Amino acid sequence: MSNESQTIRVGILGFGTVGQGTWKHLVENAESLKKILGVEVLPVRASVRDLTKDRKLAIDADALTDDSMSIVDDPGVDLICELMGGIEEARVLTLRAFANGKSVVTANKALICEHGEELFSEAEKAGVRYAFEASVAGGIPIIKVLRESLVANEFPLIYGILNGTSNYILTRMESEGATFDDVLADARDLGYVEADEALDLDGVDAAHKAVILAYLAHGMWISLKDITVEGIREISNEDLLAARKLGCKIKLIGVIRRNFENNHISVGVHPALVPVGEIIARTDGVYNGVSLTGTVVGTVVLTGRGAGQDPTAGSVISDIVDVVKGMKGMNSQPKLLHVTPDECTAATAKEICGCFYLRLRVDDRPGQLAQIAECLAEREVSLATVSQTPKDEDRSAQIILTTHQTNEHSIQLAIEALKQLPGVKESPVLFRMFDPNGFENQ
Amino acid sequence: MSNESQTIRVGILGFGTVGQGTWKHLVENAESLKKILGVEVLPVRASVRDLTKDRKLAIDADALTDDSMSIVDDPGVDLICELMGGIEEARVLTLRAFANGKSVVTANKALICEHGEELFSEAEKAGVRYAFEASVAGGIPIIKVLRESLVANEFPLIYGILNGTSNYILTRMESEGATFDDVLADARDLGYVEADEALDLDGVDAAHKAVILAYLAHGMWISLKDITVEGIREISNEDLLAARKLGCKIKLIGVIRRNFENNHISVGVHPALVPVGEIIARTDGVYNGVSLTGTVVGTVVLTGRGAGQDPTAGSVISDIVDVVKGMKGMNSQPKLLHVTPDECTAATAKEICGCFYLRLRVDDRPGQLAQIAECLAEREVSLATVSQTPKDEDRSAQIILTTHQTNEHSIQLAIEALKQLPGVKESPVLFRMFDPNGFENQ
Repeated sequence: MSNESQTIRVGILGFGTVGQGTWKHLVENAESLKKILGVEVLPVRASVRDLTKDRKLAIDADALTDDSMSIVDDPGVDLICELMGGIEEARVLTLRAFANGKSVVTANKALICEHGEELFSEAEKAGVRYAFEASVAGGIPIIKVLRESLVANEFPLIYGILNGTSNYILTRMESEGATFDDVLADARDLGYVEADEALDLDGVDAAHKAVILAYLAHGMWISLKDITVEGIREISNEDLLAARKLGCKIKLIGVIRRNFENNHISVGVHPALVPVGEIIARTDGVYNGVSLTGTVVGTVVLTGRGAGQDPTAGSVISDIVDVVKGMKGMNSQPKLLHVTPDECTAATAKEICGCFYLRLRVDDRPGQLAQIAECLAEREVSLATVSQTPKDEDRSAQIILTTHQTNEHSIQLAIEALKQLPGVKESPVLFRMFDPNGFENQ
Repeated sequence: MSNESQTIRVGILGFGTVGQGTWKHLVENAESLKKILGVEVLPVRASVRDLTKDRKLAIDADALTDDSMSIVDDPGVDLICELMGGIEEARVLTLRAFANGKSVVTANKALICEHGEELFSEAEKAGVRYAFEASVAGGIPIIKVLRESLVANEFPLIYGILNGTSNYILTRMESEGATFDDVLADARDLGYVEADEALDLDGVDAAHKAVILAYLAHGMWISLKDITVEGIREISNEDLLAARKLGCKIKLIGVIRRNFENNHISVGVHPALVPVGEIIARTDGVYNGVSLTGTVVGTVVLTGRGAGQDPTAGSVISDIVDVVKGMKGMNSQPKLLHVTPDECTAATAKEICGCFYLRLRVDDRPGQLAQIAECLAEREVSLATVSQTPKDEDRSAQIILTTHQTNEHSIQLAIEALKQLPGVKESPVLFRMFDPNGFENQ
């Protein structure tokens, strides 16, 4: 990598789901990345197992090779993304990249779990970066939060759901009463289950991630063979029901505990009954969630998609950006923005759509509600629900209304009109009904 | 700041709760920060409004001054933490620090909201950093996650609870049926309410934070006067009840929406009925929570303490670490660990305590349960709950047990013994009962 060059050229080892996602998003984000970093970052080569295979992503045939080492050794490649998985070949390629002075961004938790000590030490010796946000919990930025944001903390407890496939299976068993075997068949059909099913079903994948988190939190490499690793195969529908009666949900969790009196660490991955009040207990489907309890911050919980092409590629790209910032010595002056500052304008009240909740105090007399409904309808506000309660003390009534979809402009007109309406005793109280899944209609 | 010096000397402007917390944690973390950064970072001076006031934190009287500018101008101070609050004085001091070539770490959301455009521009011109993680949501690392981790995303929706005091009041009104006025009185007694109560109760503090998030996500400074800002004073206990009937909780939320068809942005802070299924709806008490929906990652939710001495000081310290990394040009080779790698050892099975869930299939005959209980008791495992269900098909019964607190060693002995016990038909199934608040007994 030359600091003078205007383009950082990325080579991708392994062109599966995450590899293709990384290529795609690097190309799509090229302009905004250039704004942030001051240099171009572009994917230039990728290695595949089988050159003849059809791929969704159309890239130049010249950019593909079945010889990963040729990418690592290519002087035209500045930075390596190791997204091939597996252990021995990936290790050799990563070490060679370091020896060539190239930083490596990886999603390979199994490799880090097994050879992390050697790899981080070799990266440090070579003066390059080994970045691995994508290796734990996909799109959830747990590595950066643990290492950087919570730097002032020690961690008595870290726990969470670290494998989306097993969580998907448990969630469907719980919500539908479906059997393990039936849901597993669906999960296989959906492509959620790794080729080596033990990784997902027997807790091994979650254990790889727990070992990495334990290392980051406590600086200690714990061997997979020294920790409890159990999967979800023993969990029956009767257990899920019994757990619910006990106020819990059964989740496959990784747990990393530290006793500060003697600095003893325990790491385990196993099914556990988690109280339903915990965010982790309510983290369902393919979502992952991690709860970090720090000595300074208290408990911080992060949830999000733990796998999948886009979330994982997003983490790879955030690592690439960090590595490139380090390369350019740019970190004393990073750009604050990641979008052009002049392309946005404020939305008007008419554009801001949503449903609303209204509380009114009115005279308790016939026809009052009809008048209100008519007043609202004239401003294009239609009612979804109505609830009227008489207030005996002053012959008034309280009306609570919710509306169908309308907009801020119409509802403000409606409120002004209601204030003038005979029989409405106080200024109406207005709250928004927030629908996180309906915001695209704004 | 000289790169050759072995100590980065920090000056703190404003020595209230967060200022004192920052001083304290810098001193307590001095050793680990030195390991991470390769240089010492130490607080050397702090400014106060009143030199004669008693303070909890004992620091050298010489380190205190009532002249903030003298710290900013002191060549013996390398980095400034502006934790004084207020706008005009803080602005002047911050700009002077930039002119002196000093980076500034701040928690001052009001200042950024009002003068962010000028301040970031001046910091960039001066080649220094203006870091502000502590300004939004206290201990939750929302700034870093938004800017760095999710760098590959655009954000159609960001929303969340950005003010802990108003959330505390709403939570107590909801859970206890207490009135707004009663809970407000308690919140005042607990020191939760800002001197200027409008900041907490009328949504102004949350609006400052929403404006900052909107800027980071969309590169657009929106003026406070152009957005909807409503507080919690209108919310009655009847509203909370009505909302619950509608499957919602009322929360004071900041909402930042972007319509990608026309790049129109809307920002608002107001009470809203949030569906109870959302993590944000269940974020209670003084906790804050932010949900980020990104085009690549999907939805990531972060929750944690949004204010308070320690969480906010922790965010200040993480910013200090980032700024110092930038100063030293260290970012190409940051240390991975933040604890000594050799001080921890693995816990033994006897040390790993907890409660357990057991499912057994046994012969359905008199005395079977008593035998099981005795077998467990002999291994120091005592029962908390028992539930037995007959299985007619083969004259067997299913027993589900939960235990009181014991440890991994004892429960494994118990399981081995149960396997040998007459009448136990299959290997017992064992799950952990996870108690996130009980882990300190490990």
